[in-house]
Amino acid sequence: MEHITSRKNRIITHLKNLSADGAYRREKGEFVCDGEKLLQEAMDLGASITAVLWGGEPSFELPRGIEQYTCPPELMQHVSPLKNSKGPVFAVQMRRCKYEGAVESAVILENVQDPGNVGTVLRTASAMKVDLVVLTRDCADIYNPKTVRSTMGAIFRQSVIETDLAGIKSIASENGLRLYGAALSDAAEDIRDVDMTRAAVAIGSEGRGLSKELLSLCDGQIIIPMEAGSESLNAAVAASVVIWEMYRRKT
Amino acid sequence: MEHITSRKNRIITHLKNLSADGAYRREKGEFVCDGEKLLQEAMDLGASITAVLWGGEPSFELPRGIEQYTCPPELMQHVSPLKNSKGPVFAVQMRRCKYEGAVESAVILENVQDPGNVGTVLRTASAMKVDLVVLTRDCADIYNPKTVRSTMGAIFRQSVIETDLAGIKSIASENGLRLYGAALSDAAEDIRDVDMTRAAVAIGSEGRGLSKELLSLCDGQIIIPMEAGSESLNAAVAASVVIWEMYRRKT
Repeated sequence: MEHITSRKNRIITHLKNLSADGAYRREKGEFVCDGEKLLQEAMDLGASITAVLWGGEPSFELPRGIEQYTCPPELMQHVSPLKNSKGPVFAVQMRRCKYEGAVESAVILENVQDPGNVGTVLRTASAMKVDLVVLTRDCADIYNPKTVRSTMGAIFRQSVIETDLAGIKSIASENGLRLYGAALSDAAEDIRDVDMTRAAVAIGSEGRGLSKELLSLCDGQIIIPMEAGSESLNAAVAASVVIWEMYRRKT
Repeated sequence: MEHITSRKNRIITHLKNLSADGAYRREKGEFVCDGEKLLQEAMDLGASITAVLWGGEPSFELPRGIEQYTCPPELMQHVSPLKNSKGPVFAVQMRRCKYEGAVESAVILENVQDPGNVGTVLRTASAMKVDLVVLTRDCADIYNPKTVRSTMGAIFRQSVIETDLAGIKSIASENGLRLYGAALSDAAEDIRDVDMTRAAVAIGSEGRGLSKELLSLCDGQIIIPMEAGSESLNAAVAASVVIWEMYRRKT
């Protein structure tokens, strides 16, 4: 196993670029993760791991064929997207999300820019069996290390795609889903009164809510009731309440 | 209105220390907030604002008696807890939380260390009328600027206290609340089957769950059902689902 000591080593620059640069990630079709637990999970779930950099002695054995390297702790600080990381840092191939077959439930995020919120929604969706998460317009990059980290492994499990409004319309119609927009409007129905079987629910940004264009695609609007004077919920909380409402009734 | 240009000015060091140093905050009994919207909200909700530093011309008038200062943008960058802030940065007196009268619902966080999670729980609790949020053991500081920011103003609205296990026991017994612990154990009852009126629900850290000591105080354990293979929810998401389950039945 090669021990790397230079910041200029091609593996180091590759991992560093995957961490910092979204365009580079797309070009290479890879993203970067940090931590033993995530590495274990990536292996368990059959992710394609392309390179592993250990910040010291490897803690466990990996299957043959995965490129492995070691580096000193200082270099790990340089390459890891986390502060004070012990590693390992590893690169994984993005997979093409296949939502073959029936989608019975979907959550759509529009303009949710915080990576922690996007990652948390993937995590909740995976825990509560949402068939598909859809990101549209200006959401945080799924493969941003902060997003990946907050998925807590759901990045390897949850089906997720990025598409535009026409794509959302197709998904809803092809799968016979009712499309709802979460909105703080008088026209919105209380979520408790809405049939959530075979539904896709769109959640907008905290500041601005859903766009008019997306709302105009919707079959209906729903609202999570709140106390008077409260403006809104955190986007990941709103999405999680929606996901829980879908899940609580079907299990 | 004094225009400050030196980093060594006593107002600058005061605001900077309030931002960076929890012990200093406690000593002074003040904390720091950033942004016009939060300032407006602090005023509307009657918070005691002790000093306001504008990063340029004041955007609106404040009542007499509030100390106001201006500073150039570079100094705002130095003093603000946020990146690229335009300010204003302002200091607010911590208030003594009075949970006089009956507490009919409470959420308890134990060892929830992420400031964003603690702030988000305060925000959800305020939106869904939880009478009291209780922080115990090693939670993020309520007055950490990151916590304050993620409350989105709920810091001025939501009753919140810090106490120990004996304090939690007292709150539950004085108010006739059933005390539940959220736990991923076989002994836990499905949250949908549990009577949540007059309840206090404790949520632990994501990594370790609730301590044995806290669990041993509880009248019962509850679980938010999830798919097999999912380990846990984000702490703020778990708390929000609990809060929503309390709220959805009583309104």
